[in-house]
Amino acid sequence: MSEVIQKAKQAGTAAAVLNRLTTKEKNDALLAAADALLANADAIIAANEEDLRRGRDNGTSASLLDRLALDGQRIAGIAEGLRQIVDLPDPVGEVLETIERPNGMLITKKRVPLGVIGIIYEARPNVTVDAIGLCLKTGNAVVLRGGSSAIASNRKIVEVIHQALSSTSVPADAVQLIEDTDRASVDEMLRANGLLDVVIPRGGRALIQNVVQNATVPVIETGAGICHTYIDESADPQMAQDIALNAKVQRPSVCNAMETLLVHERFAEQRLLPIAEAMRQANVELRGCARTRQLVPRANEAAEQDYATEYNDYILNIKIVEGLDEALAHIARFGTKHSECIVTENREHAEHFLREVDAAAVYHNVSTRFTDGFEFGFGAEIGISTQKLHARGPMGLPALTSTKYVIQGNGQIRP
Amino acid sequence: MSEVIQKAKQAGTAAAVLNRLTTKEKNDALLAAADALLANADAIIAANEEDLRRGRDNGTSASLLDRLALDGQRIAGIAEGLRQIVDLPDPVGEVLETIERPNGMLITKKRVPLGVIGIIYEARPNVTVDAIGLCLKTGNAVVLRGGSSAIASNRKIVEVIHQALSSTSVPADAVQLIEDTDRASVDEMLRANGLLDVVIPRGGRALIQNVVQNATVPVIETGAGICHTYIDESADPQMAQDIALNAKVQRPSVCNAMETLLVHERFAEQRLLPIAEAMRQANVELRGCARTRQLVPRANEAAEQDYATEYNDYILNIKIVEGLDEALAHIARFGTKHSECIVTENREHAEHFLREVDAAAVYHNVSTRFTDGFEFGFGAEIGISTQKLHARGPMGLPALTSTKYVIQGNGQIRP
Repeated sequence: MSEVIQKAKQAGTAAAVLNRLTTKEKNDALLAAADALLANADAIIAANEEDLRRGRDNGTSASLLDRLALDGQRIAGIAEGLRQIVDLPDPVGEVLETIERPNGMLITKKRVPLGVIGIIYEARPNVTVDAIGLCLKTGNAVVLRGGSSAIASNRKIVEVIHQALSSTSVPADAVQLIEDTDRASVDEMLRANGLLDVVIPRGGRALIQNVVQNATVPVIETGAGICHTYIDESADPQMAQDIALNAKVQRPSVCNAMETLLVHERFAEQRLLPIAEAMRQANVELRGCARTRQLVPRANEAAEQDYATEYNDYILNIKIVEGLDEALAHIARFGTKHSECIVTENREHAEHFLREVDAAAVYHNVSTRFTDGFEFGFGAEIGISTQKLHARGPMGLPALTSTKYVIQGNGQIRP
Repeated sequence: MSEVIQKAKQAGTAAAVLNRLTTKEKNDALLAAADALLANADAIIAANEEDLRRGRDNGTSASLLDRLALDGQRIAGIAEGLRQIVDLPDPVGEVLETIERPNGMLITKKRVPLGVIGIIYEARPNVTVDAIGLCLKTGNAVVLRGGSSAIASNRKIVEVIHQALSSTSVPADAVQLIEDTDRASVDEMLRANGLLDVVIPRGGRALIQNVVQNATVPVIETGAGICHTYIDESADPQMAQDIALNAKVQRPSVCNAMETLLVHERFAEQRLLPIAEAMRQANVELRGCARTRQLVPRANEAAEQDYATEYNDYILNIKIVEGLDEALAHIARFGTKHSECIVTENREHAEHFLREVDAAAVYHNVSTRFTDGFEFGFGAEIGISTQKLHARGPMGLPALTSTKYVIQGNGQIRP
């Protein structure tokens, strides 16, 4: 039996135990795990150093090495993340609906764990702990398949958490790490129907597309964001500039950052230049349509392909449009249904935009950077869903649950 | 451009229009469609006769021909089904959550249509109209891919509905029928990411497995039901017999009918024989474990494979178990997570069963035959989901919607 099949089966057995635990039992286990991470920080950092050394030898980029690196402060942050999950309400057992039927039978719709969740991700070892915390809190077992670049860190983290769980009600088998980092182990997870109830990919576009294209197991697609901000004719100029700058440069590397600024032609004539200059002062490379380049000196040309690119970087496309309809058409064509914003003082235009744009999060006069579980007040998130089934947008704990109908009666039969 | 791609694109354009319509506009369109079906009943019956003739020539079974057949009464029933959908509340626009954040931004979680729904199904032309009604009511466009055996009926039904829609606010393009009934058109639908938001298969096991195994588009899996009834030691004998008989014979051909009866050994000694005799009187073939065959004369042997078979027929497996744990283990091994029942007077056993069994619907002292949108009071259903994501159990109108976060503010940016 392969590692994936064997570990998924063990996780399934553990999931049945998890399903019976109280919130307190699950929380106690998370607190024990948090304590153990702090107590074993040195050993984790030593394992991480092994990954970093290998990364440097392989010529890994500085930014990737930074994502991979752990130190005492980062481990403290990761442990604190677990404690925050403890403080969140447990969705399992919540009654969503009660229906009493004329024949006297009582139907109760309850939240239950999903079962076994597969997480496929890349370099960041903090995802390992996040995923464990979110899955265990919701009564799910988890099968983790991290990237090869973090394998030593992940192994040590899971070893520490296994030890911590052994003195709690949560079985250690509820947390499984796939140590085989060959591509084949991913493929096997994607086809483990009946063993994995869902697979959630976290990472770059290539990883997510591989999962979506090859999984027969249900998937929650996360991530890709080509987000737009549309500045309408009537926008408040200062607000428009503040929102656009925030959406682009507050943290360009993330999925809810803006990639393309759409500007109403009449706003652009008077007001685009100062925004463009502010972007440049923030080190943003500008790529514009023909009309943009007439208004903004030294802007590069934005090619068709640029509008379809998630830069996650200090690069911005600017396109001048005739009005709301052209902006909506551009977003429909190039958007990834993640986060889209209109800046306008025209209430009718705002309502039209909020209704017409097909995206997980649509904003009026607010930066797209807020599409995030913490910013929405969910306290934590396993990712941002860009699909329409099951969960859309930032996924808090309820997104990691399913439901069950419980029907109670006294001998009802169907006539 | 292939038929599938072309029609899916037209459906997408229509979906954007549907998204703007009021409930009344959608209801008016459904009523117009219902009227048109009645007014054109003769033409539909004539087209159906063509399908039936072809079916008879091809040696189609009597039961399949019966599913396929339309007459005045059935068409009246189908039209009445549309009117019932009109009476159901429109889930679109419903506000599911409102969050005011400390920075003053207001987050509203709203129900929105899914977009374009693909339905892949087999012989029954009533599914064509059901699917159109449920999809349009929820603001979705629909791409229908029915079986070749009903193609003439489906073509005529869709032609009649297109004519009816032309005088309403719902664009005729919101309803698309794929006329190419080659397998290739199914494959194309299953990979139409970006054009179809979800595919729902309705039909037998082979059809559903093909969809699940080959789709890259999100799928809602429906259908297969190997359902169990477990009679516990303390069960009321009459209630146990009534529920078991109802679960098996009230309509054996459907997914929520019982396939295997599990009986506590002490109940079996005294009470199994009368239940077995009642089953036989109802023309049920009995297949039993070794102990069952000691108690029930002339029962056939139940092989391993029988426990894993959805008969949808007058055949029943009977297995005697030592108690609740063995029953739960059997259900975990052979169940399809559809509907499972315990008959018991022991409240603790009931609660244990209801919690431990991982299925869409778990019953205490009620026949599994109630797992149905109408019986649950939803008024209509597009199918019974046996997966855990998005929707589980009978799917009413809300299962055909997604959600969207609408964020309104006055210049909020992320610090």
